[in-house]
Amino acid sequence: MSAADELIEHNVRYADKYDGPRPVIPSRHLTVVTCMDSRMDVHALLGLDLGEAHVIRNAGGVVTDDVIRSLAISQRRLHTQSVVVIHHTDCGLLNLDEDAFVAELAAEGTEPPTWRPRSFADVDADVAECVAGLRSSPYLKATDDIRGFVFDVGTGLLREVA
Amino acid sequence: MSAADELIEHNVRYADKYDGPRPVIPSRHLTVVTCMDSRMDVHALLGLDLGEAHVIRNAGGVVTDDVIRSLAISQRRLHTQSVVVIHHTDCGLLNLDEDAFVAELAAEGTEPPTWRPRSFADVDADVAECVAGLRSSPYLKATDDIRGFVFDVGTGLLREVA
Repeated sequence: MSAADELIEHNVRYADKYDGPRPVIPSRHLTVVTCMDSRMDVHALLGLDLGEAHVIRNAGGVVTDDVIRSLAISQRRLHTQSVVVIHHTDCGLLNLDEDAFVAELAAEGTEPPTWRPRSFADVDADVAECVAGLRSSPYLKATDDIRGFVFDVGTGLLREVA
Repeated sequence: MSAADELIEHNVRYADKYDGPRPVIPSRHLTVVTCMDSRMDVHALLGLDLGEAHVIRNAGGVVTDDVIRSLAISQRRLHTQSVVVIHHTDCGLLNLDEDAFVAELAAEGTEPPTWRPRSFADVDADVAECVAGLRSSPYLKATDDIRGFVFDVGTGLLREVA
């Protein structure tokens, strides 16, 4: 049994109660940028309803070219105007050894990736760096309302840091 | 009032009912790759509980270097073994004019981005291309259980396409 099978069965029950199409433009004009971490149910922890906000997630919730691409489309084609960046405690990227990670790939005979794993040592400082990176990006259209938080996976609480 | 203020107020109530820390390793050993679209509450539509799966999201749910980076970390450091790729109907990237998008940036005097907007014309075909891209990536460790779906924002149903 594939990992997806149980989820697909659930989805049929979800669709039974699904209340139809909503506009493609997010009604809160908001984009959330956060980590892929399994302990973060973004809609639940922020109280987001369907149709309200874009959600961009990657390893760390860090600002990469792909996050800038996604935000540029979110702002320039789908009219979002605010950004919330959320890292979290106990992140897999905290103090990940980048050189060991790249060396592991090399040992398997693969070409070195063009990307770095993008680890960090201080979660608060990294949120501040990400927020600053977004504020100074020439590709974004709306940079006035960008705020940075850390989610505590122990308590479920957000703490504003930037 | 910033877009975030109401969400932060909600989060305090969320934390009141939050039932504490869970392991960093996703218990279903699964990673979901999907679009940032506001009509997709990934946990709800798949029936995912906290701690079960990584969720990677960008504009389109397309495979980029940053998705490969995130998946490589997910599989090599956090022991996930399965991937589900989900695009959706009525996507903002469907037939987005890439040249016009890049020209808009140029007209503002910004350097051309190193990334392309990454639009697509056929959602089923793009899911298949993304799944194939993941299966052949040398950076991933587990490529046997990778499945591709389209989510219908009108009905709430998933349809398997790859």
